[in-house]
Amino acid sequence: MAQKPSIPKGTRDFSPAEVAKRNYIIENIQHQFKKFGFQPIETPSFENSDTLMGKYGEEGDRLIFKILNSGDFLRKADEKAYSEKNSLQITSSISEKALRYDLTVPFARYVVQHQNEIEFPFKRYQIQPVWRADRPQKGRFREFFQCDADVVGSDSLWQEVEFVQLYDAVFSALNLKGVTIKINNRKILSGFAEVIGEKDKLIDFTVALDKLDKIGEEGVKKEMLEKGISEAALDKIQPIFSLKGDFSEKIEVLRQILATSETGKAGIEELEFIQKAILSMPLKTAIIDLDVTLARGLNYYTGAIFEVAAPQQVKMGSIGGGGRYDDLTGIFGLKNMSGVGISFGLDRIFLVLEELDLFPPAVTENTRVLFINFGEKEALYALKAVRKLREEDVTAELFPDSAKMKKQMNHANKRNIPFVVLAGEEEMAQEKYTLKNMKSGDQQKVNAEELRAILSAN
Amino acid sequence: MAQKPSIPKGTRDFSPAEVAKRNYIIENIQHQFKKFGFQPIETPSFENSDTLMGKYGEEGDRLIFKILNSGDFLRKADEKAYSEKNSLQITSSISEKALRYDLTVPFARYVVQHQNEIEFPFKRYQIQPVWRADRPQKGRFREFFQCDADVVGSDSLWQEVEFVQLYDAVFSALNLKGVTIKINNRKILSGFAEVIGEKDKLIDFTVALDKLDKIGEEGVKKEMLEKGISEAALDKIQPIFSLKGDFSEKIEVLRQILATSETGKAGIEELEFIQKAILSMPLKTAIIDLDVTLARGLNYYTGAIFEVAAPQQVKMGSIGGGGRYDDLTGIFGLKNMSGVGISFGLDRIFLVLEELDLFPPAVTENTRVLFINFGEKEALYALKAVRKLREEDVTAELFPDSAKMKKQMNHANKRNIPFVVLAGEEEMAQEKYTLKNMKSGDQQKVNAEELRAILSAN
Repeated sequence: MAQKPSIPKGTRDFSPAEVAKRNYIIENIQHQFKKFGFQPIETPSFENSDTLMGKYGEEGDRLIFKILNSGDFLRKADEKAYSEKNSLQITSSISEKALRYDLTVPFARYVVQHQNEIEFPFKRYQIQPVWRADRPQKGRFREFFQCDADVVGSDSLWQEVEFVQLYDAVFSALNLKGVTIKINNRKILSGFAEVIGEKDKLIDFTVALDKLDKIGEEGVKKEMLEKGISEAALDKIQPIFSLKGDFSEKIEVLRQILATSETGKAGIEELEFIQKAILSMPLKTAIIDLDVTLARGLNYYTGAIFEVAAPQQVKMGSIGGGGRYDDLTGIFGLKNMSGVGISFGLDRIFLVLEELDLFPPAVTENTRVLFINFGEKEALYALKAVRKLREEDVTAELFPDSAKMKKQMNHANKRNIPFVVLAGEEEMAQEKYTLKNMKSGDQQKVNAEELRAILSAN
Repeated sequence: MAQKPSIPKGTRDFSPAEVAKRNYIIENIQHQFKKFGFQPIETPSFENSDTLMGKYGEEGDRLIFKILNSGDFLRKADEKAYSEKNSLQITSSISEKALRYDLTVPFARYVVQHQNEIEFPFKRYQIQPVWRADRPQKGRFREFFQCDADVVGSDSLWQEVEFVQLYDAVFSALNLKGVTIKINNRKILSGFAEVIGEKDKLIDFTVALDKLDKIGEEGVKKEMLEKGISEAALDKIQPIFSLKGDFSEKIEVLRQILATSETGKAGIEELEFIQKAILSMPLKTAIIDLDVTLARGLNYYTGAIFEVAAPQQVKMGSIGGGGRYDDLTGIFGLKNMSGVGISFGLDRIFLVLEELDLFPPAVTENTRVLFINFGEKEALYALKAVRKLREEDVTAELFPDSAKMKKQMNHANKRNIPFVVLAGEEEMAQEKYTLKNMKSGDQQKVNAEELRAILSAN
């Protein structure tokens, strides 16, 4: 008995319609990346383990897929770990390679390795799969695509302005109106910690603040108190729990709260620069908003922090995010390389477009016309026409077997092929084709030129 | 001291120019796949090990990259293998997943798993990376892309005709003229073995014959004799060692040699069907040739065998291949599903196009115009123009920092950006832009409309 085939949990097969829709999103992102001057790179699916290990924290290390060495790998296994049956300790001696976990660390490695070939500032984009041994759940997979654009080698705030414009350009091109580009700055968060006199509790503070949406003001305050932040401290920043109004109004409140923090004021200045530029170059369909609760990978970002929320009518987490990290390549020995970048969440964007019915029907159209196969002579006549149509960029096919008419028509129907051509002896004698519109049922006898004209039209 | 970054042997980083060229090839292949009615699918990078193991022979099993189980994987390690330190035996108990080795087995698995959603005959294409733990050498990598198109569920010979046309369409689109599509048939090879009375030595016979190009007639005969094929047997098929002339002339010789073999005659009939169809629909730039020495994975193919050779002036192995296999999905329990397919060798096609200088210059063009940054006010003026240009599909950038003029001009030069815009106070007052052609050195002052017109033109 043959095995019943299946795929590993957390992975997916993509059907033709799914691939077409995913490619529609990717092509739109890619097109805007290019128009903004980003250039593509690609890196190997697996890296040397020491390139990846230790870059994502302990939890990250655990979630990295390791590749078993080839051949007699146990021969080089660490002896102590082997005798103790210690899985964690033995890993590095039987596995030298690992699947990439994100595109950022490979990018940093690429920049350092190829620094002499690169002209800085370097604007690169990268659209490739990554792998994580996470527990699979709804919307979380063990293999998924990341779509990243980053600039390395410039600390100009114009980059941040460009990234806001880039988000707007992509979502506008996808006809996804009303996304909110939330923006914050690590310096604002540092400023908060500073003015409440809890500089060393920055992480606890922001981790709690990040949950405001989910657990509300009381919940956040409770968590902060538990972490040892005093009531008096919380009073000093009380206004941030109920920040309202537009970008400028929020800035004004922050200006008061952060009046005594140089870092905080620097953060405000950066936010204002971005806001001013966006006011002069209004976004097409996105909304920009200041969200001081936004933290995202705080250990990582040093300046701007971005996150994109889907339009309000859709319940979905963030569909994009990013920020500035001042020492991207330092881990590989190249200092003082500021980086800033954004990412698009392909899977979630897919779900949002699906829910809002925003995929243009043309995306999943495939074959436009199927020629019915009536036998060898007729098939050759048909295939000659098929060939001419393809030269005019019409997707055309001949049914491969001279099967029963009903079977062939069913095939066209099931595949949603809009036109069918029937050409038997009579048509061949007249150099014509009977063209049937599968939707209306109408059929007409046409010559080659008419056939081309009808099928080329959209 | 930070680690010096590197990548695993046999893998590659692709620079922007390399990605652009690879994508140019992939997009051309993909475009023709679609026009011929093939639909894309994608499968996970890793499969359950038992989906892959045992499908490629012992050597193949060895070359499959295995993924180490997560967590405390040693806990479930096979005890006997562990105590014996037997790497081969222990593998299946500490590794459940493996990176795909080709696209054919995952496709077969896909077809069986999704058979109820698929409308047969199913024409699918798939362009994804595969991984093999082969010894890396020039032109052989551990990660490389396969570009496959297959039809499953029809044994019509029109498919073979279509695949010859598809090869021709792709290589014509790539402007690679003069490729030879070599064709053979498993039934011809079986016929040879039959007429010399050595049916059971079919594999030895074809493995030797396959080397005719490399070791010559004497070498092949020597190997055949060593394998126990008699002199008398070789005499019977003597003409195949020096087959000359065009397709039809070769067929005539085969007709004589294979006169007593029903299988051989069936093979001739199939070849003639294909040849006749191609004569009625002549190829655009490719040459079709009958090559009876072609064996390619003989254990696999049951009918037509294809291989594409680069134009003669380029020394390069095959740049594509394929054939018919009558029981594609049998390994997963779905019987009687004939499949036929072809593959394009992306890496080798890349090298051939490079050697013949066939990449259109536009492929590696990126940013068309760089705006010089003279400071905050000027940068905003520039960015507004950049934005308008992008809306007209012109790739435009602002240099992010108001660095020294020389540095900014150098950046444009090093990146081969053909135009630079200089807009300072004077230009801003006049609502103009000074446009410099970096090649000719000419510069002119233009308004927004003129700027757009010049930069949009090709």
